Amino acid sequence: MAEAAQTLDGWYSLHDFRTMDWSTWKTLSSDERQAAIVEFHRYLDKLNDTQANQNGSHALYTIVGQKADFMLMILRPTMEELNQLENEFNKLKIAEYTIPAYSYVSVVELSNYLPSDEDPYENPHVRARLYPTLPQAKHVCFYPMDKRREGNDNWYMLPMEERRSLMRSHGMIGRQYAGKVKQIITGSVGFDDYEWGVTLFADDILQFKKLVYEMRFDEVSARYGEFGAFFVGNFLSEDKIASFLHV
Amino acid sequence: MAEAAQTLDGWYSLHDFRTMDWSTWKTLSSDERQAAIVEFHRYLDKLNDTQANQNGSHALYTIVGQKADFMLMILRPTMEELNQLENEFNKLKIAEYTIPAYSYVSVVELSNYLPSDEDPYENPHVRARLYPTLPQAKHVCFYPMDKRREGNDNWYMLPMEERRSLMRSHGMIGRQYAGKVKQIITGSVGFDDYEWGVTLFADDILQFKKLVYEMRFDEVSARYGEFGAFFVGNFLSEDKIASFLHV
Amino acid sequence: MAEAAQTLDGWYSLHDFRTMDWSTWKTLSSDERQAAIVEFHRYLDKLNDTQANQNGSHALYTIVGQKADFMLMILRPTMEELNQLENEFNKLKIAEYTIPAYSYVSVVELSNYLPSDEDPYENPHVRARLYPTLPQAKHVCFYPMDKRREGNDNWYMLPMEERRSLMRSHGMIGRQYAGKVKQIITGSVGFDDYEWGVTLFADDILQFKKLVYEMRFDEVSARYGEFGAFFVGNFLSEDKIASFLHV
Amino acid sequence: MAEAAQTLDGWYSLHDFRTMDWSTWKTLSSDERQAAIVEFHRYLDKLNDTQANQNGSHALYTIVGQKADFMLMILRPTMEELNQLENEFNKLKIAEYTIPAYSYVSVVELSNYLPSDEDPYENPHVRARLYPTLPQAKHVCFYPMDKRREGNDNWYMLPMEERRSLMRSHGMIGRQYAGKVKQIITGSVGFDDYEWGVTLFADDILQFKKLVYEMRFDEVSARYGEFGAFFVGNFLSEDKIASFLHV
Amino acid sequence: MAEAAQTLDGWYSLHDFRTMDWSTWKTLSSDERQAAIVEFHRYLDKLNDTQANQNGSHALYTIVGQKADFMLMILRPTMEELNQLENEFNKLKIAEYTIPAYSYVSVVELSNYLPSDEDPYENPHVRARLYPTLPQAKHVCFYPMDKRREGNDNWYMLPMEERRSLMRSHGMIGRQYAGKVKQIITGSVGFDDYEWGVTLFADDILQFKKLVYEMRFDEVSARYGEFGAFFVGNFLSEDKIASFLHV
Repeated sequence: MAEAAQTLDGWYSLHDFRTMDWSTWKTLSSDERQAAIVEFHRYLDKLNDTQANQNGSHALYTIVGQKADFMLMILRPTMEELNQLENEFNKLKIAEYTIPAYSYVSVVELSNYLPSDEDPYENPHVRARLYPTLPQAKHVCFYPMDKRREGNDNWYMLPMEERRSLMRSHGMIGRQYAGKVKQIITGSVGFDDYEWGVTLFADDILQFKKLVYEMRFDEVSARYGEFGAFFVGNFLSEDKIASFLHV
Repeated sequence: MAEAAQTLDGWYSLHDFRTMDWSTWKTLSSDERQAAIVEFHRYLDKLNDTQANQNGSHALYTIVGQKADFMLMILRPTMEELNQLENEFNKLKIAEYTIPAYSYVSVVELSNYLPSDEDPYENPHVRARLYPTLPQAKHVCFYPMDKRREGNDNWYMLPMEERRSLMRSHGMIGRQYAGKVKQIITGSVGFDDYEWGVTLFADDILQFKKLVYEMRFDEVSARYGEFGAFFVGNFLSEDKIASFLHV
Repeated sequence: MAEAAQTLDGWYSLHDFRTMDWSTWKTLSSDERQAAIVEFHRYLDKLNDTQANQNGSHALYTIVGQKADFMLMILRPTMEELNQLENEFNKLKIAEYTIPAYSYVSVVELSNYLPSDEDPYENPHVRARLYPTLPQAKHVCFYPMDKRREGNDNWYMLPMEERRSLMRSHGMIGRQYAGKVKQIITGSVGFDDYEWGVTLFADDILQFKKLVYEMRFDEVSARYGEFGAFFVGNFLSEDKIASFLHV
Repeated sequence: MAEAAQTLDGWYSLHDFRTMDWSTWKTLSSDERQAAIVEFHRYLDKLNDTQANQNGSHALYTIVGQKADFMLMILRPTMEELNQLENEFNKLKIAEYTIPAYSYVSVVELSNYLPSDEDPYENPHVRARLYPTLPQAKHVCFYPMDKRREGNDNWYMLPMEERRSLMRSHGMIGRQYAGKVKQIITGSVGFDDYEWGVTLFADDILQFKKLVYEMRFDEVSARYGEFGAFFVGNFLSEDKIASFLHV
Repeated sequence: MAEAAQTLDGWYSLHDFRTMDWSTWKTLSSDERQAAIVEFHRYLDKLNDTQANQNGSHALYTIVGQKADFMLMILRPTMEELNQLENEFNKLKIAEYTIPAYSYVSVVELSNYLPSDEDPYENPHVRARLYPTLPQAKHVCFYPMDKRREGNDNWYMLPMEERRSLMRSHGMIGRQYAGKVKQIITGSVGFDDYEWGVTLFADDILQFKKLVYEMRFDEVSARYGEFGAFFVGNFLSEDKIASFLHV
C-alpha cells in the first residue's frame, strides 16, 4: 500500500454557481427588485463583516457562458457555517430568481512540507494560506479534478517518492505564474465528487489558459489528471450588482 | 469462477435526499407552513417510536451544497416497510415543497468472518451491527461504490484468498478511525445502481476526508474502487427543524 | 467472424416505470381521484382478460426509492399491441399525474438448446417459457445489461464453444435459485439501448442480492457483464391500488 | 495516415423524434384538437406532394416506450429545406403539444464501389439509393453509431484494404436480410454526434433483432462498433393519425 | 515533461446556442412580437457597428435539428465585453422566449510557426487571423474537441517534435479545403470543458462532412482526437430574422 500524502486543512469552502431566471425577475416591479437587491447587499454586508474580522472570506464573480451567471465562493471555519450561509442565501428574495447551476464543497488544503518538529498550524505563512482572504482579481477560473486511477496510469499506486518528485516539477510550473495567477487548492475527498477543486485568480484572463495548458504537458496532468467542468468569469464588485441585475 | 464472499444481511435501508423548493414553500401562509411542520414532526414521531422499540432506525441530516438540502436515512426489517414510509413521506404536505434529489436502496451488510459452527444471526455483537441504531453524530457522509471490473483491474476475477487479504489490510485503515468515524456498509447488488453504499458518521467532519483519502492509497480503493457521488452534511436535530424551514 | 447464438423469441415486452406527481394528484377532488382510479381499474381489467385468455400477461409493482413509484410490465404477441396499450395508458386520467421514469422494450428470449430435428416453438415446455404468465411474487427486480466488448474482454469475439461453456456454468448458478427466484430474460438488441433485460421475481427479496452477487463472481458477469440501472419493488395487488393512491 | 473511404452523398436527412404532451393536449377543446390535426395533415400533404414529385421523401412512425411517441423522418436535397420544414413543424399547433425527444441530422450515404471511369451520380441504381422513396414498412428501427477508436481497436488506424475486407463480410450479413429488412445508411460526420445513422424498415419487427444481433458477432461490430440509443416503432398511416391523437 | 506548444491568442469568443420556445412566443400579440424583433435588431445593429469598426465580429446561424434553433457567435477583445453582451442578450425581450441550449467560451488561437525574431502580433497576416471578421458563408459547423490522454494514446506525453510532425500532416488536409472551408480554431483550456472549439464555414455544407471525415483517418484525429457535440446550421441573414420568427 502506498503511503498517503499528509495534508493541512484550513477553512471549509462552498462554491455556489447560479443562473439568473431573467424572465421571472422581470415580472417583479422595479420596487420589488430594488428591495431584493438591498436584501442581497445586507447579506453581503454580513459576509464582509466576517471577512473584516478574519473569520472567513468570500468572492463574487459573474460567469461567462450558459453554465451560470454568477458564483459566490465562501470560506468559513466550519461546515455548519457554510450550510447556514447557503440556506440563508436560499431564503433571500433574489434566490427565488436564481437556478442552482453547480456547487462544490471542499476545504482549503496544503501539502505538508514543513519539518516535523514544528506545528505547521502555528506557522504564520501556513496560516495565511489555510485561512486566506480571497483576492479581488479581475478574473476567476474554477475546475474540479481527480488524480487518475486507470490501468498503468494509477496515481494512487505510485510510491510516495515518485509522487513527491512529480508534484515538485508540477509545482515549478505554478511558481512561474507567481504574481500573475493566485491559486487556491481545496480538497474534497469525502466531501464532493472530485478529489480537489482548483480556484485561480488573475487580472489577465489569458494567464489561466497559459497556466492550465502548460501544466497539461506535465506528466502529473498529462498522465494522471482528470478534469471536470471549467468555469471562468469576471469580478463583480458590489457597486456593479445593481447594474448587473438591472432589467 | 471465483468464490463469492458470504454476507450477513440486516435491516433494509433507504437514503432519501431532497432539495427544498424554497420559492413555493414561501408562497404558503405562516399557518400553513406551521401545519406542514407539525405533520412532518408527527411522521418523525412514528419513526422515533419504531426506533425506541428497536424495530428500525433513522437519521436526519442537512446536506451542504446544491446536491440536496436534507437526507432522511431509514432502516427497517422489510423492503415493504421502507416503501410504505417513502410513500407516506411523499404524501406529507412538506413533500410538495421538496424535489427528489437522489435515493439509495440497500441492506445493512457484514462480511461473515465468524466460525462456521455458530449462527452469526444469534451473536449479539453481530446483531448490534446488522440492526443498528444510527448515531446522532454531528456529521454524515454518504457515497455509493463499486468494485472495479476493468482489464487487469478486475476484483471479481481475483481468487477469494487475495480478496480476503486485500480487504483485511483495507479494514486496518478503518480500524484506525475507531471512535472517530462510525461506518455503516449497506449492500445494494440487485437493489440499486452501485454495489455498496457507505454511510459515515463523525463529530469531526475532517475525519471523513482523512479516512477516505487514506483508503484511496490502499490497493482495494486505488485499483479496485469506483465511486459515485459524495454527499456530506450536518445533523438536523428535531428541535432545529422549524428553524431550518423558517422563511 | 464468431457464430451468432440462435434465439427463440416469444412475446414482446414493455417495462413502463412511472413516478407519481403527488402534488398535482392532491389537487384533484376526492371524486375526481376516485374516477381516475376506477378508470385505471377498467384498463387493468382488460389486461386481466387478455391474460386469462393467454394472449398476454402483465405485472404491477411499486418501486422503492426515487427512481420510480410503480412499474407496469406488459407482454403481448405483437409490438403494435404494446404500443397501443402504452398509448391507452398515456390517455388515462391517472397518467396525467405520472411522470415517465424509464421504459424498456424487448422480447422474451430463450437460447435454443433443443435438438435441431424438433420445432422448438411446438414444444410445450418452450412455449410456456416464451409466452409466460408473469408470477405474482412479492418482489420484482429489473435491470438491463450488455455483454462487454472492450479490449481483451470482448464477448462477441469469443468462439461459440467458449461462450456456450461460459454460459453453461453461468446457468448453473441460476439453477441453484430455482424455486426461489423466477427469471425472465428479454432480448432487446435492435429494440432498446442494452442487449437484454433481466426481470427477476421472488418472495424473499434478499434472493435478488444473493443471486446477482454470486453471479458477479462468475466469469460471464465478472469479465463480460455491463449493467444498467437496477429497479427493485414490491407487488401491488389490485386491491391495494386505492390505498397506494390515497392522499 | 490511412486512406479515407470515398462516399457518395444523396439527400439530407432529419430524424425528428417527439413525445406527446398528452396532459396539455387534453386541455384543448375537441374542435381545437381537430383543427390542429387538420393543420398537421396539410403539412403532411405538402410533404406528400414533394415525395410525389421525387424531390424528397418522408416517413411517419409511432415509437414504442418512453423515448418518444412518434418520429418524422424527412429527406430533402438541401439542409436549408430540412431546416425550413423543421421550423414549419415547430410552428404548427400540434407542435405546442409535443416535446422534443431526439433528433438526428445526416445525409444519405453510399460507399463508392463503382469503376472509377463512370460517374456514379449518373448511374440509375445508385441514384435510386441516394434519393430513395422511403418504404412504408410496418416497422422502423433507428440507431446512430460510431466506428471505435480505442487502444488496439481503432478502425481509423486500419489500412484501407483491411477495412474494405471487413466491410465486405459485414455487408454479407446485410445481404442475407434482403427482402426482409431495408436499410438506409446516413452519414453524419460533421453534422451530428455519431458518425452514421442506421434506419431499418421491415414488416417483421423481429428481423431488426436478428440482423443487429447477428452483425454484433461480426468483427466490424464486435470490435469496432459503438452504438447510441435504439428507437423502434410502428408505421403510422395518415388515416390513423386522428385515432392516435384521439383523447 | 513534454514542451508545451506556443500559441498566439486573439479575440475572445462566445458561441451561444438557443432553442426557441415557440409555444410561449406564440402567446405574444403580433405587436409584442414585432417590438421584440425590433429590439433584437437594435442589439444586432450595435454588434454590426462594432464589427464595422473592427473591434469585434459576430455570426448568426440557424441550427438544424433539436439541439438548438439558432447560434450567435461573438468575438471581442475582452472577456468582460463578451459577458456584457451575453447579459444584454439575456435581458432582451426575445431572450424570454429562448432556452439556453449550449455555449462555448474560448479565444481565437494560432500556433506560432513564425521566426522568433519577429513579433507575430505585429504581422498583418497573423493579425487578420487573430482578429477575424467572421465570414457570411451559407453554412456553419461547430464542435469542441480534446486531444486524448489515454493509455498509449496520450498526446500530451508525445515529444514536441512528434506532435509538430503529426500536426503538419494534419494541416495538409485542411489546406486541401482552402477556398471551400474557412476554419476558425479557438482555444478553451482553462475556459471551457474541452480544449478547443472548431468553427467551420462553407457555402457547400457537404464539405464539412468531407473535411472532418478525411481528417478522422489522420493519426492526429484517429488516435488522439476526442470530439464533443456537433452543431450544423444555415446562415440567418438579418432580413430573414422576421420570417424565421414569424408564427
